[in-house]
Amino acid sequence: MSVRVLFAGDDRDWPVYAPLLRSACAARGLEIALSDTAPDPAAVDYIVYAPSGPLKDFGPFTAAKAVLSLWAGVERIVGDPTLTQPLCRMVDSGLRQGMTEWVTGHVLRHHLGLDTHILHQDGIWRDKAVPPLAGERPVGILGLGALGAAAGQALAGLGFPVTGWSRTPKSAAQIDCRHGADGLAETLRRAQIMVLLLPLTEDTRGLLNAERLALLPEGAVVINPGRGPLIVDADLLDALDRGRIGHATLDVFATEPLPPEHPYWAHPRVTVTPHIASATRPQTAAEAIAENIARGEAGRPFLHLVDRARGY
Amino acid sequence: MSVRVLFAGDDRDWPVYAPLLRSACAARGLEIALSDTAPDPAAVDYIVYAPSGPLKDFGPFTAAKAVLSLWAGVERIVGDPTLTQPLCRMVDSGLRQGMTEWVTGHVLRHHLGLDTHILHQDGIWRDKAVPPLAGERPVGILGLGALGAAAGQALAGLGFPVTGWSRTPKSAAQIDCRHGADGLAETLRRAQIMVLLLPLTEDTRGLLNAERLALLPEGAVVINPGRGPLIVDADLLDALDRGRIGHATLDVFATEPLPPEHPYWAHPRVTVTPHIASATRPQTAAEAIAENIARGEAGRPFLHLVDRARGY
Repeated sequence: MSVRVLFAGDDRDWPVYAPLLRSACAARGLEIALSDTAPDPAAVDYIVYAPSGPLKDFGPFTAAKAVLSLWAGVERIVGDPTLTQPLCRMVDSGLRQGMTEWVTGHVLRHHLGLDTHILHQDGIWRDKAVPPLAGERPVGILGLGALGAAAGQALAGLGFPVTGWSRTPKSAAQIDCRHGADGLAETLRRAQIMVLLLPLTEDTRGLLNAERLALLPEGAVVINPGRGPLIVDADLLDALDRGRIGHATLDVFATEPLPPEHPYWAHPRVTVTPHIASATRPQTAAEAIAENIARGEAGRPFLHLVDRARGY
Repeated sequence: MSVRVLFAGDDRDWPVYAPLLRSACAARGLEIALSDTAPDPAAVDYIVYAPSGPLKDFGPFTAAKAVLSLWAGVERIVGDPTLTQPLCRMVDSGLRQGMTEWVTGHVLRHHLGLDTHILHQDGIWRDKAVPPLAGERPVGILGLGALGAAAGQALAGLGFPVTGWSRTPKSAAQIDCRHGADGLAETLRRAQIMVLLLPLTEDTRGLLNAERLALLPEGAVVINPGRGPLIVDADLLDALDRGRIGHATLDVFATEPLPPEHPYWAHPRVTVTPHIASATRPQTAAEAIAENIARGEAGRPFLHLVDRARGY
């Protein structure tokens, strides 16, 4: 009998994902009945889910073996009381690669001071001193999950000294890994460029506040492709106004799209980007979903199962 | 007896290089008499040279065992008829690292489309489609010397498919290496982003002309941190006007500083940077110079000896 899979993502993603999910499952010998509607919720085996899709109540899906998120961040459903099924995060090689490219591009942009030339094509030959080499530019990464570790390793490969921080002890090649409160302070003190790639949980909400911003070196750059509420916006704006923080490049916000009147848009030390640091790539994401369905059907443990207490 | 070394670089570099050259030589057991003047040119053993320095006639230095260039490019002296001594190019790990960072930064900038956001902080949330991943963005490198190979390998490490071209056959890990006329055409046809890191010789002057620009894919980006005259400026401007070439980021020019009235400054598809892609770094350059003096004194072959016929 077919495995019944409900696609509960964005409507516009359905025509993209349907053939990819079918072929990724077929490649694993799985016969699936895939639909974007569920006349009988109790008959659904797996739910492919995105918060931007139509599904708001997981209650009727009484036989579902797992909810497979298309998004890396699960903070919008992890506390949903109707969600009692196992929940898996998306860990997608395309998302990881895209994030690595975005983070590396913006770290190099700030390291090399590219904005001066991009913004001032005015005939003035500004042959200032060459910037320090990457080896003299310490970078910090908050969060050592799949995304943080990959971005940190790419930066280390280019010669940047990288310190990474996570709540619990982790290890990652080429990264000086720290954890806990002391590790956080040390990571902040070193980082001329600080990249935020933490999941959003009750522990990490507002993590980058005035007190922690004050630990960063004078003129440090903050890059946030993680989640908007990791930063206390008023505290960051204050630090930017005073020049304590040299620049902030922000891709994610508490409210998206960021309203046109938000002070970030007009601030000369802020670059707003519209939540484009990375995106789930359908081809590789469909493979990740199919892999978890195959595991579920074979009675093997799911990959990237969310720990509800931890929040990710 | 001391080895007599003349520093014939820029005046302002003398106080920087003097202590570094002395300590780099001392570390190799060499006793040197280093000066920035040569009352008796015939007594000089080695000349540390930059085209921006005072030395114009190598004739009187009848006993000099080598001229050790502080610059990577030697096109300004390789044809000097007074220069009969062995000439060594600068191959400096700091220069190579700096160039790799600059090239990687600008390739990622164009790949990710960073300028859109850097230039338009206007409250409009432009969440366009995410760019292709690096694996779908072929990059070409013209020139597979120390700089081209290092930059190409860094880009390949980030996932870009890299094709490299050199006049004569070369091999470099992770780079699809081509040579000769057919290889050049193939390298140009593939490259969505083309980086110029060739030495300037009679063979390479004007290499990127209308005919060769026409081989690049529609909308390709040209990045030139090599030498200005590799490009036929009028041909590039024409291709930019027509949008055949999407953008050019140019760090080097036939005349530097680039005059304020030059059309490159005002062209919306051009980014001028003021010859900052990389610079010889005194610390590592002094080590390279000391190494060659030590080799000369030990009767071993010099590193990076210039082939006059080839021009580099």
